[in-house]
Amino acid sequence: MSSSGFKTNHLAVVGLGLMGGGIAMAMRDRCKTITGMDLNPQTRDYAVKNGIVDHATDDLREAVNEADTVILAAPVRVITEILRMRIGTYLRSNTLLIDIGSTKHDICEAMGRLPVGVGAVGGHPMTGKENSGIEAADPTIYYGRPFVLCRTRRTTPATRDRALRFVEALGAEAIEMEAERHDRIVAGISHLPYILSASMVATVAKEAQTDEAFWQLAAGGFRDMSRLAASDIKMMGDILSTNTRAVATLLAMFRVQLAQLETMLISGEHDKLLEMLMPAREARLDWVENYEQKRSNGHTNNKTGASS
Amino acid sequence: MSSSGFKTNHLAVVGLGLMGGGIAMAMRDRCKTITGMDLNPQTRDYAVKNGIVDHATDDLREAVNEADTVILAAPVRVITEILRMRIGTYLRSNTLLIDIGSTKHDICEAMGRLPVGVGAVGGHPMTGKENSGIEAADPTIYYGRPFVLCRTRRTTPATRDRALRFVEALGAEAIEMEAERHDRIVAGISHLPYILSASMVATVAKEAQTDEAFWQLAAGGFRDMSRLAASDIKMMGDILSTNTRAVATLLAMFRVQLAQLETMLISGEHDKLLEMLMPAREARLDWVENYEQKRSNGHTNNKTGASS
Repeated sequence: MSSSGFKTNHLAVVGLGLMGGGIAMAMRDRCKTITGMDLNPQTRDYAVKNGIVDHATDDLREAVNEADTVILAAPVRVITEILRMRIGTYLRSNTLLIDIGSTKHDICEAMGRLPVGVGAVGGHPMTGKENSGIEAADPTIYYGRPFVLCRTRRTTPATRDRALRFVEALGAEAIEMEAERHDRIVAGISHLPYILSASMVATVAKEAQTDEAFWQLAAGGFRDMSRLAASDIKMMGDILSTNTRAVATLLAMFRVQLAQLETMLISGEHDKLLEMLMPAREARLDWVENYEQKRSNGHTNNKTGASS
Repeated sequence: MSSSGFKTNHLAVVGLGLMGGGIAMAMRDRCKTITGMDLNPQTRDYAVKNGIVDHATDDLREAVNEADTVILAAPVRVITEILRMRIGTYLRSNTLLIDIGSTKHDICEAMGRLPVGVGAVGGHPMTGKENSGIEAADPTIYYGRPFVLCRTRRTTPATRDRALRFVEALGAEAIEMEAERHDRIVAGISHLPYILSASMVATVAKEAQTDEAFWQLAAGGFRDMSRLAASDIKMMGDILSTNTRAVATLLAMFRVQLAQLETMLISGEHDKLLEMLMPAREARLDWVENYEQKRSNGHTNNKTGASS
């Protein structure tokens, strides 16, 4: 697999934001032509002027109908719409189609209904940045990061092989799993944290209405725990509403954990409270040591943002 | 007030950790003698050898009975014990006594029962660092940070004036408030976030028992939201158990916010969900702009840690 590397004649990137722009930059030397599709004219200008793409258009058909590799780098619901409404009729046979949407069930379902002959794989790179937009695009955000691949009814063995080589070419680590499993995992590690962050900020904001000193004294703990609350609302709304069941499941599990802690706290069972807090501390320390630090070695520029 | 500055003949720092060590270093040029008290012999050696204190002892009486300013820089429950059990009989009349414990009600109560003549003020500097211990001590962690002062029944006008000058000498910003108000605020901005972080990590850890990929895919959102869960358990247990009522109140408020978000999510009321998420986003962005960025200008070394 790795011996041949990833090559494509014509790459189309639909959505020239941080993530799509980074993919185009990373693939520059692996394809003859890159076309980009974006509805924003400034974005298209920027991408062409900076050599990120060879040609940019606001027309989906024009962007993809000559391509042999198409990357859908748009918000989840836009990807689903593109898949359901139009793109199947525009694509050439044997085109490799990969998306980078943050939830996978709906997208992989829609991919499975594309015309036979399209090779479609669901994708989710676990990376991002604080800043968004083409100006922040950076191919190195993919280096050493997990890139989940979810097979669909349109994933042939050859499609899978090309998708793996594509991920390898990005410098990312391919992790293959079913869409449902992916969605449950991201509900836990990403969507639950976001909801908790937003609810915590809403709680403090309510208190701060009558006492501004809440804002004045808020420090490092609040800063970390409130960062996700500032995520793009539309993007997060799309993500949550395409992953409702898994998020609701994780929320129900979270409530059990919170209620146990609260019981120990209010009942004054100090030793039991410490016993409950200890495994969470150890789990976080183990995660940093066994996953986070290993991954970040040599990739210090990779500050994963709210979008992952 | 600011014209005279803070001076003291003999400063005693009880507890030579990150915070106490930093205070000793910041006060070096403002006093003739600094004594430190710590139970750990390595800590005492380090503090003396590095000139952070002139003399170190494990005996509380010896540390404080010649001092005219005493800083209690120990965990909350240790401070409360010191106040209740012994220190009142050791202190000279007119000594200024300030603590830096993270909750203020119990401590200020105990200060109020000290002998008349001791000038006691509750304190809480809203700062910290990832690392703890005397080796990490750094006087600059106080620069530009809020330092809450809570008056007690032993706070005379002269005591208050000296405490304000002490805080100013640290380069911190004094914020005076009642202990109860302080405790409610830190319940919201610090203790609630900690409990949410620990409960979130416990939830993910439970899922990860049967699927290691939770750890593997966890990225930036999880990293931020899990950091507080790694706080020192004993310290956090002390803090929570001396602030039970305020923490329970904030938890009850949090549950309301969470339930509202969950209702919108599960019922599929997408627009209402976005309407609820928006104010939290704006509140966080406003906080960063109006408080956090102003404070951090010129204080980039001040990465506030879990202890604040």
